Amino acid sequence: MPGSNSLSCFFNPENIAVVGASNNPDKAGYVIINNLLKINYPKKIFPVNAHEENILGLSAYACLSDIPDKIELVILITPSKVIVEVMADIDARMAKKKDIKGIVCAAAGYAEINTPEGKARQQVLMEGAKRNNIRVIGPNCIGVIDNYSKIDTTFVETLMQESSRGKAGGISFISQSGAMAASILMWGASSPAPLSYSKFVSIGNMADVDFIDLLEYLEEDVTTKVIGLYMEGYPKTRTLIETMARIALKKPVVVLKVGRTSKGAAAASSHTGSLAGEDRVYESAFKQYGIIRVENIEEMIDTMRALDLLPLPRGNKVFLYTQAGGPGIFCMDALSKNTTLDFAHINESTREQLRNMLPSFATVCCPEGYADISASASVEQHVQGINLLIADPSVDAIVFITVVPTFLPRNKLAEEIANIYRKTVLQKPFYTVIMAGNWVREARETIEAAGLPTFETPDRAAKVVANVVRYTQFLKKGSKRPGMEGQENATGQY
Amino acid sequence: MPGSNSLSCFFNPENIAVVGASNNPDKAGYVIINNLLKINYPKKIFPVNAHEENILGLSAYACLSDIPDKIELVILITPSKVIVEVMADIDARMAKKKDIKGIVCAAAGYAEINTPEGKARQQVLMEGAKRNNIRVIGPNCIGVIDNYSKIDTTFVETLMQESSRGKAGGISFISQSGAMAASILMWGASSPAPLSYSKFVSIGNMADVDFIDLLEYLEEDVTTKVIGLYMEGYPKTRTLIETMARIALKKPVVVLKVGRTSKGAAAASSHTGSLAGEDRVYESAFKQYGIIRVENIEEMIDTMRALDLLPLPRGNKVFLYTQAGGPGIFCMDALSKNTTLDFAHINESTREQLRNMLPSFATVCCPEGYADISASASVEQHVQGINLLIADPSVDAIVFITVVPTFLPRNKLAEEIANIYRKTVLQKPFYTVIMAGNWVREARETIEAAGLPTFETPDRAAKVVANVVRYTQFLKKGSKRPGMEGQENATGQY
Repeated sequence: MPGSNSLSCFFNPENIAVVGASNNPDKAGYVIINNLLKINYPKKIFPVNAHEENILGLSAYACLSDIPDKIELVILITPSKVIVEVMADIDARMAKKKDIKGIVCAAAGYAEINTPEGKARQQVLMEGAKRNNIRVIGPNCIGVIDNYSKIDTTFVETLMQESSRGKAGGISFISQSGAMAASILMWGASSPAPLSYSKFVSIGNMADVDFIDLLEYLEEDVTTKVIGLYMEGYPKTRTLIETMARIALKKPVVVLKVGRTSKGAAAASSHTGSLAGEDRVYESAFKQYGIIRVENIEEMIDTMRALDLLPLPRGNKVFLYTQAGGPGIFCMDALSKNTTLDFAHINESTREQLRNMLPSFATVCCPEGYADISASASVEQHVQGINLLIADPSVDAIVFITVVPTFLPRNKLAEEIANIYRKTVLQKPFYTVIMAGNWVREARETIEAAGLPTFETPDRAAKVVANVVRYTQFLKKGSKRPGMEGQENATGQY
Repeated sequence: MPGSNSLSCFFNPENIAVVGASNNPDKAGYVIINNLLKINYPKKIFPVNAHEENILGLSAYACLSDIPDKIELVILITPSKVIVEVMADIDARMAKKKDIKGIVCAAAGYAEINTPEGKARQQVLMEGAKRNNIRVIGPNCIGVIDNYSKIDTTFVETLMQESSRGKAGGISFISQSGAMAASILMWGASSPAPLSYSKFVSIGNMADVDFIDLLEYLEEDVTTKVIGLYMEGYPKTRTLIETMARIALKKPVVVLKVGRTSKGAAAASSHTGSLAGEDRVYESAFKQYGIIRVENIEEMIDTMRALDLLPLPRGNKVFLYTQAGGPGIFCMDALSKNTTLDFAHINESTREQLRNMLPSFATVCCPEGYADISASASVEQHVQGINLLIADPSVDAIVFITVVPTFLPRNKLAEEIANIYRKTVLQKPFYTVIMAGNWVREARETIEAAGLPTFETPDRAAKVVANVVRYTQFLKKGSKRPGMEGQENATGQY
């Protein structure tokens, strides 16, 4: 650790300088300034560029030493070959001002390229940081976002549009791959309501700030409700797993860990130079410590959103309420595959009310935990049934599927579902699947704008239900484990 | 079988009557007429409605008997309770004209509702059909599409837009669930280039025309290159499997079979009344006979498209060419999980050329079958590498992943990829993944418009590669099995 500063300099710095800022929209040094402006970073931004007087309306400076105001965070996007000059400038400034606490080195061309030059440049960066007591994120990273203190040091272009920026939310994400980070940001931005992050960090080469530093920071961060990680490999496996295990007792940790196969591990090694580690070590530790391992990007995004936006189920009793037979059967298969889950035997009175209220074509509780309300169900029937299931204490989680039949007013349905959420503080999670594709985009936007997640397919929802129920069961067991009695437990938070 | 007519009356009828046609856009009887007009059905459409003179610009008739022209196909969308009157009208017409060969009964409220009334109505329908030698699709179905002879009897609203109608293609699909059929049509319509069907049939209750009838028809249908099925259950399991097995030697059969678990099977039984059957019987038969079983809707659509649009790989040697490290590692894991697949050891000269041509940050053949061309690769470098791999005979299939870095002109890249396809008759399949989400929609549209499929994520592409390679290997083995020597084999077709 080159400096003892806390990581808060990255998430709430007093003024930011961007070394390598540019007026050329095809340069990362332009997008970074633009993103900082678009997110409305409330303090001062100082572009550093030897040849420009003005960048995106901001006064530019030839070097860091020239900036009169306090600078707590420096973003480096200059080519790696000038790192010696940049660090000399930092030395010069620090000799007088002693103000810089953090560097985000976004540029590539350091140790990750695995050449003597690359390694030497990373050494120059890190030695300079160390002698000035500065923390470093990167190099070779996309940047850092904090939606609460309005920081965005990334050069991801999607964020340049107001409409694709998510609101400040409860998800904090750490990515070991810049491309994966950019993809996840783009996917999140193009979902019906953009994904709501608290913090987002692309950690690149982890020359200083690494998984454990960030996990510990997010552990204490009150706006972080769910932590997501994309991981390739990390040398201190044991400490990492211990840290994740401790945090999982307080807030859910969702991990996409790659390098599971020997070929994948070999590719990981040639990518970040990191050793993927024996996958079965991770696999069994994740299982044991309630760390949610996901199989793919969709499952990761779906699971993080559900954990952020919906309460945790109290138990494992699921009810599937479907408007469409085929997708319903498909979902029953997907739910049944998870031995963690069970189906709710609803109360006699709920059963009666559903039978009386639903169309004659409907099938109720045959099998248990299942109702097919049929294509003839009206919007009111859709909604009444959901309300009955929300009120029934024998149901812990509801999966609701609708294909939205051609002649059902789907935007009215969406509005009514959004109202269920607006009117009641949800006491149990409610997973909505609206099929299919872009044809129901507007309906999904209405529901998501109200703060409820929607899912693309029945099996994607089923995976999320299994993940959150497994996590709930872990918390229940976890808090009873010997030596864990005193641990804070997240169950009450939701 | 109530009639001995061939199924061609459904796919190429001489004139169509729609009983229950409507001027109300919120009725299925309106959408059906509209869809027939939108697809440019080349022959005559006769709306039947006792109260209207004119429907969507077409002269309406009070009953079938009044229509002067020949009618080969009748679509029934009247409420099921008037089936007695409708069948009497058909009797009256047939006594004079003897022209009707097929009925698509789209209306619900027949045997599927499992009441004495529902069953009695289905009996009226079927007895009437039998005495007049008429084939029946349905009841309780979405309808029939043939993109070659320009038939669309469905009431799926997405098809009312010109832009969401796929071109005539090689995929023919049979769905046992109307909701699943509608969803699949909607998903297909909202992909970057709408899915290209040859025929699409929602078979509903299978009161007459069933899986086997349709499979046998599609087996001989020259425009059908790939057959897809969504199945819940079918009583004549043995005959069905034998039929699918015979067809799989000629053209690929892709199946989403639900009711895999006891809960799923129970839901299937209450849906279509069909018995899902022991899943392990299907599972082992599908494996043995080269029938491609898919896990979900995405995999089904992806696999069908790849089989329709791309050549089959000659062998199992895959090369992964990625612009992004993280997604590349993730994809290596996904590919490696399939023991069917192997990685290509490319020729020494290809290796040399890739190393010389790619940016210095690139990793080539480390591990074998893998190149990470890095975020600094230009459009030309993207494309040159693909061309080298296409030319190398040691590669049977190429997976190409790009996240499209912020500063790479993605639409130019898309145009160049489309050109690869336009300029050369592809001798090997080439699976393109462009991440992520709607941010690259335009690039995906450009590529798909040229006739190449694109995939949403690396793991979705990996699943498709595994499916098609497994099928190719089956064909190679299949044609060598005892008693199979004389069978026609599809390998040459691709």
